[in-house]
Amino acid sequence: MSRIYNFSAGPAILPEAVLASAAAEMLDYQRSGMCVMEMSHRSKVYEEIIQEAEQDLRDLMNIPDNYKVLFLQGGASTQFAMIPMNLMKNGVADYIVTGEWATRAAKEARRFGTVNVVASSEDKTFSYLPDCSDLPITENADYLHICENNTIFGTKFWTLPNSKGKPIISDMSSCILSEPIDVSKYALIYAGAQKNVGPAGVTIVIIREDLITEDVQPNTPTMLMYKTHADNDSMYNTPPTYSIYICGKVFKWLKAMGGLEAIQKTNAYKAGLFYDYLDQSEMFSGTVRKEDRSLMNIPFVTGNSELDAKFIKEAASNGLVNLKGHRIVGGMRASIYNAMPVEGVEALIDFMKKFEKENS
Amino acid sequence: MSRIYNFSAGPAILPEAVLASAAAEMLDYQRSGMCVMEMSHRSKVYEEIIQEAEQDLRDLMNIPDNYKVLFLQGGASTQFAMIPMNLMKNGVADYIVTGEWATRAAKEARRFGTVNVVASSEDKTFSYLPDCSDLPITENADYLHICENNTIFGTKFWTLPNSKGKPIISDMSSCILSEPIDVSKYALIYAGAQKNVGPAGVTIVIIREDLITEDVQPNTPTMLMYKTHADNDSMYNTPPTYSIYICGKVFKWLKAMGGLEAIQKTNAYKAGLFYDYLDQSEMFSGTVRKEDRSLMNIPFVTGNSELDAKFIKEAASNGLVNLKGHRIVGGMRASIYNAMPVEGVEALIDFMKKFEKENS
Repeated sequence: MSRIYNFSAGPAILPEAVLASAAAEMLDYQRSGMCVMEMSHRSKVYEEIIQEAEQDLRDLMNIPDNYKVLFLQGGASTQFAMIPMNLMKNGVADYIVTGEWATRAAKEARRFGTVNVVASSEDKTFSYLPDCSDLPITENADYLHICENNTIFGTKFWTLPNSKGKPIISDMSSCILSEPIDVSKYALIYAGAQKNVGPAGVTIVIIREDLITEDVQPNTPTMLMYKTHADNDSMYNTPPTYSIYICGKVFKWLKAMGGLEAIQKTNAYKAGLFYDYLDQSEMFSGTVRKEDRSLMNIPFVTGNSELDAKFIKEAASNGLVNLKGHRIVGGMRASIYNAMPVEGVEALIDFMKKFEKENS
Repeated sequence: MSRIYNFSAGPAILPEAVLASAAAEMLDYQRSGMCVMEMSHRSKVYEEIIQEAEQDLRDLMNIPDNYKVLFLQGGASTQFAMIPMNLMKNGVADYIVTGEWATRAAKEARRFGTVNVVASSEDKTFSYLPDCSDLPITENADYLHICENNTIFGTKFWTLPNSKGKPIISDMSSCILSEPIDVSKYALIYAGAQKNVGPAGVTIVIIREDLITEDVQPNTPTMLMYKTHADNDSMYNTPPTYSIYICGKVFKWLKAMGGLEAIQKTNAYKAGLFYDYLDQSEMFSGTVRKEDRSLMNIPFVTGNSELDAKFIKEAASNGLVNLKGHRIVGGMRASIYNAMPVEGVEALIDFMKKFEKENS
């Protein structure tokens, strides 16, 4: 089989050009005589790789100078603990619960202090986003936490909640780099790389410098202090060198594509094609309230679980894979991250049309 | 430049066959139509990769059934905290301090309880290992921690310390898989992969099952509990999938080489060649007491820092790179892990002979 269209929610599709370039450099990176995996992280050649990756990310996201960019390990799940350990100075924080990962983030934070859930969409299986224009923000809350794009449920905050001046912390694991954002509106942004950036094993953290202090909770490990990594430019210990190198290649690919304005247009176009088809289909329907729909993750169902299963199976044998929905939502889910070409979305829609005709 | 001989202490040389195979599979792993980086960690094809990696490691190290094998993130530095957070039930542990990383492990553990240093070789810049046959083990110590091979100083425990029945925890980052060991003598073995196994970003933990409990220190994050990862076969959250795949290839390479008995012979032969030359050289000398010498990391000096610098520079222009010693020891260091071919060590010795002749 040649390359297929991979709709996995993460780890997920990567640009073919990035993979081809990594393959070509595997035995000898730029005449260094070695693979990037084999390089000392303290070597000049590797320092250039990580510094360029950071600079390219700063350029792409227009990250202000008073923000640090960190390449960490442990995934978003480790951030769920690092955030309260480092930032719950008053011992209380507000969380908006809009899905599985937001729920887990809030649950983990409860190990370290008081968590107030100031909004939730759990009542309707997280199929919409709550009104966040006038939340009961806690007076001494250290921050307000959101999961900006909900991978499992396919919702996306299109307007940031009104945090009434509290610092906003956003899990952007499944939407980072999908559109331009104003970083200055956030106190901290974090994202596991394995959805829209690169390989699993890198977590990107973008944190405003004034939040980086030594004043952390008792029993905070050195490795879970933002200050440790900020003071050492993500090189306190050996970072996940190869995975960062792949992320760097993705950043360069995005720049060559025209940056985040350009990719946003493509993402809107791709999702638009798909939602347009969904909205007129008599077999398939989306599961999310229209105004809250994600451009990255699109859950959909036929309403008949046997038909869903048949669809997933036949799609796979037509080179359209990983369309099975998350068990909580059921049905199907198409994750169409930056690296999914328009042709992949078109091929999926064509197949759905054909399937609909044959099975109705 | 083609492939060179890379004597880096870590990240370090990997078997060329492993890299070539990874390059060949980059765009299409075994007719899956995708790169391993792009695979859902929950997919059948990836589950086979991680399960095979674990089984191959179990086979190679002859790991008993009552030990769990975990593939974690965060490096040995994160283990420095996880170990006391999970295992300091009495709040006290004994540490043997034989180098920089052992020192750091002890320092981090002090954040979580009382640390007694029961032996140290700091008095002579860690150039030897202390006598550990009759240590002042603390009566209620939860464990005894050692760093088994000291990467910076080039020493190796050739006999395990007499722990007087206390569980032994060993940092094997720079010697894991270099020789057969009796896993049952240890309570917990851990190793950052980036020296003798694979890419940076994976930490291997081999832990006896009875040590895995929910009885951990206050404020222990979910992600830093061994139980979290043991209960989920290293899949509580997305593991560093691609890095584990590369480790798996290294395990298969080792099996094909004849396993750890065979690699031990090669390692002893390579180090023997090098030490024999060092011991008869009039220019170069080793820095470590003979009986404590590592087979993996060999520091050596000329005694003249200008000559050291000249050597390092000329060696590099002859394709022998990353020979600069750690700043604490100075001089040179040749790290000759499993993946360093005999030819690499021979080329280094030949160059040293030539350099000695030209500069004496």
